[in-house]
Amino acid sequence: MGVGAEARGEEAVNAGLQRYRFTLCYDGASWAGWQSQPNGRGVQDRVEETLAGIVGSPTRVHGSGRTDAGVHALAQVAHADIPATRQLTPEAWVRALNARLPRSIRVLHCEPVAADFHARYGARGKVYRYRLVRDAVQSPFDDGRAWQVYGALDVGLLNDGARRLHGTHNFARLSANRGDAKEAKHRGDALATTRTIHRVEVREVEGEVLIEFEGDGFLYKMVRMLVGSMVRVAQGRESLAWFEDLLANPSGGPKSHHCAPADGLYLVRVLY
Amino acid sequence: MGVGAEARGEEAVNAGLQRYRFTLCYDGASWAGWQSQPNGRGVQDRVEETLAGIVGSPTRVHGSGRTDAGVHALAQVAHADIPATRQLTPEAWVRALNARLPRSIRVLHCEPVAADFHARYGARGKVYRYRLVRDAVQSPFDDGRAWQVYGALDVGLLNDGARRLHGTHNFARLSANRGDAKEAKHRGDALATTRTIHRVEVREVEGEVLIEFEGDGFLYKMVRMLVGSMVRVAQGRESLAWFEDLLANPSGGPKSHHCAPADGLYLVRVLY
Repeated sequence: MGVGAEARGEEAVNAGLQRYRFTLCYDGASWAGWQSQPNGRGVQDRVEETLAGIVGSPTRVHGSGRTDAGVHALAQVAHADIPATRQLTPEAWVRALNARLPRSIRVLHCEPVAADFHARYGARGKVYRYRLVRDAVQSPFDDGRAWQVYGALDVGLLNDGARRLHGTHNFARLSANRGDAKEAKHRGDALATTRTIHRVEVREVEGEVLIEFEGDGFLYKMVRMLVGSMVRVAQGRESLAWFEDLLANPSGGPKSHHCAPADGLYLVRVLY
Repeated sequence: MGVGAEARGEEAVNAGLQRYRFTLCYDGASWAGWQSQPNGRGVQDRVEETLAGIVGSPTRVHGSGRTDAGVHALAQVAHADIPATRQLTPEAWVRALNARLPRSIRVLHCEPVAADFHARYGARGKVYRYRLVRDAVQSPFDDGRAWQVYGALDVGLLNDGARRLHGTHNFARLSANRGDAKEAKHRGDALATTRTIHRVEVREVEGEVLIEFEGDGFLYKMVRMLVGSMVRVAQGRESLAWFEDLLANPSGGPKSHHCAPADGLYLVRVLY
């Protein structure tokens, strides 16, 4: 991806385009994640296709970041540049897109923004929520939408784990490598895997447990590996010291191999 | 359906059968209702088929009553008689059935019951819940699971409607006719369409409105026609007097033609 000119919004200014910011909600269960896929099953593919159909020419959509296959979004943010000759009111964009998109993807909001707004490079943080359900038999209504963790689960220990996460840490052992480790190569390992977490909240609501993470950014599979590892401790199968070591000694041993399923993960908000 | 012997449970006693009571949860969106269908798309068809596969012979399942196509159940109750030679523990029945049923149908509970327990004739009441969502754009997570009512809706008027429903009324104008009007013919029109409602509760929860009905029984499409008509009043499109007249003068005019969609309706509990 060419970052320079695009990040500065020059593309939009030069071509007489209007930049729009879209807020999207999607049920990730039937999609191969946000990012464009060779098989076209990325949410981005479908939104680009739909937008191109309305605009009449190929239209690139830039999301705030990837969500993995099966991960949901309550409010993903994306931007796109639309030729001045194809402009609708924000309300008309919402209606036109929703009329053409499958029901598993909805456009919640649209607004014109300045050419220097960038959904990805402008994001200063994100909020993710993870849903754990505790039923012996998983409700059909939670199918693909939560992680069923049946049996003993010490919510106090989930809270202990959550408290350890506040602040800046190197999450090298609590995140997965992408196929392309470009970013890591350019910035040096430690910096590339260091993130700051501002808030982790564990709430019990009607027999389910919600864990909400707010941070300046999240690495590939990081939230799922955090949840998988915290649950492991809360089940009494690993100690809190084991979890602390994963955080404190980023190069002190192998990665955690406890990754919570995508089903329970929701991108709640992107912060600008 | 032969009611006599069956209702008294003689069938079970005579054949050396054990009667089991099952509690089932299903997402109605992909089913043609509870009741057996010629095309086999009734939830009952699928449960009977699955049970027969385990038992090794055709097995009839008796539900507490029908739910229409698209209507959901959080706890439908059904019973079946299983030959003494094919008995599992209740926990093993739950596991065996869930392993074979599609994920849209779950068995939550199973217990052996006396031969005079009857899921339908023993039911002394039911609880239904209706979900209205108020979002301008319906969330993909509510697709098939709620009725989207956007725009002005006076919840005070929903409550006024709810209060009028308490007690015993003739719901002839607030229920649909089935193809076979057998029951009506046998019992006389007024009695056949008279039901008692013990509780109607309107709650606003996180931007949605839940209406819960508890009564001794509900006629075909009755809850949906009640909700459809109450919403009509709450939208200011009909008067409360119009709704009162539907209740007070069961033969005083045409039926209400405002039927809320099946998507928002949940059978919550069957009372014995």
